[in-house]
This record gives sequence, C-alpha cells and structure tokens, in this order.
Amino acid sequence: MANREPVRVALAGALGRMGQAALEALGREEDLSLCGLLVRRKSDDVERRLASYGAVYDDPEQLLSTEQPDVWVDLTGPESVVRHVDLALSRGVRVVVGATGYQESDVARWTSLAEAQQVGAAVCPNFAIGALLMMRFAREAARWMPRAEIIELHHDGKRDKPSGTALRTKDMMEVAYDVPIHSVRLPGLVAHQEVIFGGTGETLTLRHDSLSRESFMPGLVLAVRRVMTLRGLVYGLDKLLW
Amino acid sequence: MANREPVRVALAGALGRMGQAALEALGREEDLSLCGLLVRRKSDDVERRLASYGAVYDDPEQLLSTEQPDVWVDLTGPESVVRHVDLALSRGVRVVVGATGYQESDVARWTSLAEAQQVGAAVCPNFAIGALLMMRFAREAARWMPRAEIIELHHDGKRDKPSGTALRTKDMMEVAYDVPIHSVRLPGLVAHQEVIFGGTGETLTLRHDSLSRESFMPGLVLAVRRVMTLRGLVYGLDKLLW
Amino acid sequence: MANREPVRVALAGALGRMGQAALEALGREEDLSLCGLLVRRKSDDVERRLASYGAVYDDPEQLLSTEQPDVWVDLTGPESVVRHVDLALSRGVRVVVGATGYQESDVARWTSLAEAQQVGAAVCPNFAIGALLMMRFAREAARWMPRAEIIELHHDGKRDKPSGTALRTKDMMEVAYDVPIHSVRLPGLVAHQEVIFGGTGETLTLRHDSLSRESFMPGLVLAVRRVMTLRGLVYGLDKLLW
Amino acid sequence: MANREPVRVALAGALGRMGQAALEALGREEDLSLCGLLVRRKSDDVERRLASYGAVYDDPEQLLSTEQPDVWVDLTGPESVVRHVDLALSRGVRVVVGATGYQESDVARWTSLAEAQQVGAAVCPNFAIGALLMMRFAREAARWMPRAEIIELHHDGKRDKPSGTALRTKDMMEVAYDVPIHSVRLPGLVAHQEVIFGGTGETLTLRHDSLSRESFMPGLVLAVRRVMTLRGLVYGLDKLLW
Repeated sequence: MANREPVRVALAGALGRMGQAALEALGREEDLSLCGLLVRRKSDDVERRLASYGAVYDDPEQLLSTEQPDVWVDLTGPESVVRHVDLALSRGVRVVVGATGYQESDVARWTSLAEAQQVGAAVCPNFAIGALLMMRFAREAARWMPRAEIIELHHDGKRDKPSGTALRTKDMMEVAYDVPIHSVRLPGLVAHQEVIFGGTGETLTLRHDSLSRESFMPGLVLAVRRVMTLRGLVYGLDKLLW
Repeated sequence: MANREPVRVALAGALGRMGQAALEALGREEDLSLCGLLVRRKSDDVERRLASYGAVYDDPEQLLSTEQPDVWVDLTGPESVVRHVDLALSRGVRVVVGATGYQESDVARWTSLAEAQQVGAAVCPNFAIGALLMMRFAREAARWMPRAEIIELHHDGKRDKPSGTALRTKDMMEVAYDVPIHSVRLPGLVAHQEVIFGGTGETLTLRHDSLSRESFMPGLVLAVRRVMTLRGLVYGLDKLLW
Repeated sequence: MANREPVRVALAGALGRMGQAALEALGREEDLSLCGLLVRRKSDDVERRLASYGAVYDDPEQLLSTEQPDVWVDLTGPESVVRHVDLALSRGVRVVVGATGYQESDVARWTSLAEAQQVGAAVCPNFAIGALLMMRFAREAARWMPRAEIIELHHDGKRDKPSGTALRTKDMMEVAYDVPIHSVRLPGLVAHQEVIFGGTGETLTLRHDSLSRESFMPGLVLAVRRVMTLRGLVYGLDKLLW
Repeated sequence: MANREPVRVALAGALGRMGQAALEALGREEDLSLCGLLVRRKSDDVERRLASYGAVYDDPEQLLSTEQPDVWVDLTGPESVVRHVDLALSRGVRVVVGATGYQESDVARWTSLAEAQQVGAAVCPNFAIGALLMMRFAREAARWMPRAEIIELHHDGKRDKPSGTALRTKDMMEVAYDVPIHSVRLPGLVAHQEVIFGGTGETLTLRHDSLSRESFMPGLVLAVRRVMTLRGLVYGLDKLLW
C-alpha cells in the first residue's frame, strides 16, 4: 500500500475508553491517517493530550469541511451518533459505526443514504472477531447438535442480564427449542461466553474470552479498510468477514 | 495384608447399576471377600449371573445368619435401606451406606446403635473423592475470595434442579451472601460441577467431572476398610479422608 | 419413510465394542433393517446373544449371497476390513467403513470400484458429529485468528501421542506457523480436545468432549442413509454433512 | 481501626507497572498512609505525577531518615531490591518484598536480620490469593488423586517456560511420579493455570485466571498489615493466610 495515499480517517469519541484504544490502533496503520478527532468540548488540556494523533474539533460540520475525511469512525454514544452519521453520509463520507443507541429506523435511513451516495457504511455492534466467529459457529452447530445452553460471564459491574451478545447468539441459532441463558456476574471476570451443545455421548463447547477493549481493534481497522471499496450499508462485522 | 483373613463383605443391591460396579470393585481387592449378595428376588437366572461373585440371598436375615459378614454394604434404595441397616447394626455388623432415602432420625438411631454395639458405620451420600475435594476446597476458598457462583451440568435425564451436590457445596461455603446456582441439562453430559470464585483481577475455578459410576468405587473400598477400625458412625466420606 | 422398504444393513464386527453399540443404534431405526451380522467365529453362545438382532455369519461371502444387503457396515479391524470392503464393492453393495487400518492405495481402489459399480461408499475415521464440527470450525477460525495451540486429553490407556484427531485438526488448519499440540494422559478422562485461538485482547476456544462410543452412532446412521443415494466414494463424514 | 494512627508505608518502585497499581491500592486503605515513594530518578515531571500520593525520593537512606516509615514495600527489581531490604531491616523497619531477583542467601540474611531486630518481614513471589489457593489445593488433592498434569497458559510475550508458578505448584505437590507441565503461549491470554487430577472415572480441575496486576493488591495490603504484628520473616503469602 506504500504507493497509495493513506485513507483519511476522522474519529468521533476520541476521549472515550474505546476511542483511546482506537487512537492507538488506527495510528499504528501505515495505510490509514487520522486527520480529525471529534471531542465533546475542546480545551487546552484536551488539545495537548491529543496533539500527537491529529487535529481536534468539537464541531462535526467544521471537521468534515476542513479535513475532508474519507471515513468517519463513530465511537460516541446515543446522544450524538445519529446526528453524526446522518451528517457524514449526507456529505458522501463513508462511515464505520461502533457506537450503539440508534434505532432500526436510523439504520434504514442510513441504508438509503449510503446507496444514494454510492458509498460504503458499516454498522457493527461488536468488532471482536473471536466473538463473531463464536456466533457464526453457534449458528452452524445448532443445525447438527440437538440441544444447547449458553453461559455468559461478566464482571459484577455489568447490570444487564443476559448480555447483548448472548441474546444475539441465541437469535442466530434459529432453533425450535428454547435455549437457556445463564448469567454469571463476578469480580475478576471481564467478558466471556460459552455455548455448550449436547448430543449423543458428546458435547461441543464454543468459548470466547474478551480481556480488553483491544479485542475490538483488528475488527475496527478491517471495517475502515472495507468501507473504502464497499457500496451500500452492511450491518454486522461478520458481513465483512465472510 | 496377605497374612490377615480377608474382610467378609455383604453387598445389598447387587443387581442395581451401582451394585454391579461395586461387585467388580470389591471383587478385585485381595483383602476383601464378597461373602453374600442380597437381591430383591432370587431366580435361576440371577444366581447364574452372580455365581462367580458370591452366594445369593433375597432374605437379609438369612444372609446375616449364614454368612456372618464383617461389613454390610448397602446400595439399595429408599424402600429397604432403613430396614437393612437397622438389622445389621443391631447384630453388631459394621455398615457402609451408599443408598439414599433415609431420614435424619434414621441416622440418629444408627449413631446410637453403632455406639452401643461399639462398631463402625459410614453413611456416605457421595463416594467420589474428587467431588469431596471440590466441596472441601470450595469451603476454604469461600473464606478468602469475595464472591462465588456455582454451575452444575448434568445429562438431560436428570430432573431435579439444582443437584444435591450443588446444594451441599453451597451449604458448606458458609457465606453471608447468596451463591447463585446455574443448572445446565444437556444430552452428552454426565455429572459435572464448577465453583467459580471472583476476586480483584482474578478468578479461581474448581471443577469436578464424574464420567462413570466407577468414580464411586475407590471411596467405597476405602470406607469398607475404615469401618473395620472405626467405632461409631461418621456421616460423609470426607470425615474418613481428613 | 413408513411406506418404503427398510434398507437392508449387514454389520461386520458385531461383537466388538463399537459393533455392540452399533447393533443397538441401527436396530432402533425404523427405516433400517439389520439383516446379517458377521462375526469372526460362530458358536451357539454367539448366536444366542445376537439372535434378537439378525442372522449370524462368519463367512462374508455367504452373508452377501444369502442376505443381499443394501449396505455393508464394516466395524472390524486391520486384519479383515480390506478384504470385506473389496468383496462388498465388487458385488455392487454400498459400504460404510468405520474400521481403520487400511492404506491410501486401498481407498484409491475402493474409489474406482464405487465409481465402476455406480454405488455409494463412505470411509469415515471419525463418526462423532461434534468432533467434525470442531475440526471444521478450527479450519475456519485459523483464517482469522493469528495463532493457535491444541490440547488433546485422553485416558491414560491411550498410548499414541498426539491423537489422530489432533493431527487431523492441525492439518485442516492450513496455517503457515507451527501449531503446538499438548497431550494430556490421565485416568478419569475419556476423549477430549481443545483448540485455543489467540488474538489481540481475546481468545476463542473450541472444545469437544466425547464421553462414550455412543457419540459415533448418529454419524454412523447418517452415513448408512446417505450412501443409499450417493454415487462414488467420500472420505470423511464431514463430506456428507456439508 | 479509626482510632489508631495509620501505618506509615514507604513504597519503592512507585513508577513500575506493579508500583502504580500499588499506589492506588495502598492509597485507598484508611489504616495505611503512604509516606514516601522511592523512584530511580527524581524530576519535576515525576514529582508532579506522584504529588497526590506522597513525598518523592530517589535516595532510600534519605527516605528512611526523613519519613521514618513503619513498613518498606519493595516492588523494584533485581538491581536494587537486595540493597533496599538490607537497609530497611538494618534500621528495624518491617519489609514486604514483592520484587524478585534475590538469592536464597539473601533470604537467609534477611531472616537473621528480622529476628535480631524483632520485626516482621514478608517475602512473597506471588501476592494473588487465588493463585495461592490453587497451589495449596493442588498439594492437598495430590494426596488423594492418583495422577496430575499442569497446563499453564500465558500471553505470547512471556519467554520463560514453564512459568515459575507452575514449577512451584509441582514442587508443592510432593508426588513420587513426574507431573508433566504444558506451556501454552498465545496473544490474548494473560496468566492462567490449570492443574488437572485424574482418578477412577473422575477428574478434578483447579484453574486460576489472573487478568490484571490488580489481582496482587489484596494480598499486598494483607501482607502490609500482617508484618506490623509479625516477628521474624515468612516466605510466601500463604504463610500469612493459613
């Protein structure tokens, strides 16, 4: 890729926990160039901290106009993701959305926008490739093994039960019987899931362990590269893998 | 032990699934001699099948009078265990009880009988040494790790939830907080349990997998030997180990 | 399938450990009919034991001539499997081969024979569906996760290290780096395998636990049904699943 | 403890990765007071970063003279730990040593020093309580289960095989047979160990997962408190637990 111009990437949510990991991850790739970082409120302190990564903005329109990014990566939250993505797509800028908090109707509108503008868009609730493989394999195994149960294990700070990944895994399995989900909440855990399949005289277990936000970075980088050649919107990183 | 007379062992419940494993296990030990086998109903077919292991009876009193066993091993069920153990202890015969279905009041009476007769008695709901170690370690770990949850996994033919071992483990842990028990029921599983402890930045997991009735045999043989020198009744194989 | 004639199945190796499990499994299926059982040596005792399952033979040619089976299931061993399968295919009888001990050249010859006769043949070193899924998923995951190691765990009676399944899994993964295989041999284990994939901040683990020969039966029954419509030879049950 | 004076704690190695976690952990405890922080080289930047935790020194003698700490916590490395501990004990200051790189002869000298000065000293290669429980349980289980193997799994940056914890576990098991140790090195792992015991028809598995340096903090805090009342040196946090 040495001969090509690097892809210009804008990152919204650069100060969040995921955003900070993304700064490092995107900054390491030679074919990508962080051109603009969006934060909620600019200050001298914020600019100093982010100076080595890229120019800092707190107005998305100004960032888009000034930097002319190729891809808008959105790792903000429910309060701003919809506005940002609407704005970027309307201007024909490709998007990679890792934030959550949007509605189905938003995704529908983004799909139309991406098609109208003939640009790529990737909306990915989970970027961890291992988690996607687990879900994909669970769907396949459910066709051949008669029964399954899910155990999801998370740190005790996680309030919601069951986890979103467990619910999505269950959905993907498309089985006629009910798949019980067991939720374990303990200090010392991070984010883990087991799908156990039982058959005659045998069991098959799929387990994913996510130990840090770093696990999302390879998937995020991959998505940024893929939206450059994609036309239209895909929902789920798995659509970009297979 | 070659110079001593072998211990004469009576086995009640010789045709049950546990009993058949016990026939093989007790029959292999040189210091033990199977002298009488109690079945519910004698027949030519039953006698032929058991001929190589020992004399067959369907009347417990007749077995005791004729064979004069040193130890009565009871692997029958709720319908007969109480009557058998009362009878054996009253005659001063040591007992090892693996059957379940008795009451606390039965154990209290057996305790008095064993003391009055000055003989050993072992009442053991679970003979698997690994399961006992798991429970013992769970009790100890609960003193040092702040929280725990239990996952017990059994074949889908097991109707009761949670398992008796899970409940007993929870009891032994003696903690102020509630320990959730998750019950997984799937074909292909046998009998498994995990106790997961969570602390700051770490977890400790104790797991026991029981793959066959054979797991009960070393504990059963150990109990038979120990009641020969014991005076009085012990409840739980763990009391004989430590 | 109630209206069709049941498929006539010959079973070679009916007295082996796998064969006995197969007697029960094949006998349970309404669309299959055990017509002839091949043993090494006939005797009154053997005939009595097998009487309820099907007619007993110790000469494969006689079995084929008399019973005219649709499918020959071979669960014998290295000493006879090649002769049996040559014989069956030469007469245009479909085969399902679970025995091992043949050479690559044998499989090549059987492939030609099956094509010449226009009949189906399935040669399957492993019938456990869960094990096949594990291998298939390992191949897929190896494309996306940067590194992997294999842990295979078996009872301490298993002399060979590493297991055939571990070697086959490694082969299927088609990676440029070396995949270490760790072999654990302990009493109390049966047959287990873990493939652990490591990536940035996450791991993905595929685990298969085989607790009894029963785990081979659903795959065997499936193979018997599939060779009825198949033309030519397939190597590996996975080819019949996907 | 509100009525007592807080224990004055000096922390050597405050800028190391373990030291930074210790700053947070020790700073949170009301009965402990961080009085002096030793770093290799003082600078304005270092002082600013550590200002909220305690006074910064780069000369251990000056720290000891000025701050008169009750306990010296050493989380430095092979290049300085021996000199520091000699110095602190010679002045009658209790020590908690988490650094490694000393010799057996050093520990022998510290033992004499602690006794001569009648002060407590705790030398602890591993502060994670879960890891200590695992080792302790492994020692106990080895008495009852016939065979065992160890699997230790670490991130791929760890060069040494097998891990120190695996070797220490093996030592503690005191068995006549050889205990194989399998070393797995993969990205995405942190620090994990399984001890698998096999017996007749059953297995018992002890597993420890350490996901962050935080796992050492409760043990470190406990050791600081215990050396206040201890006389003489103990090697291993386990000696303080049981």
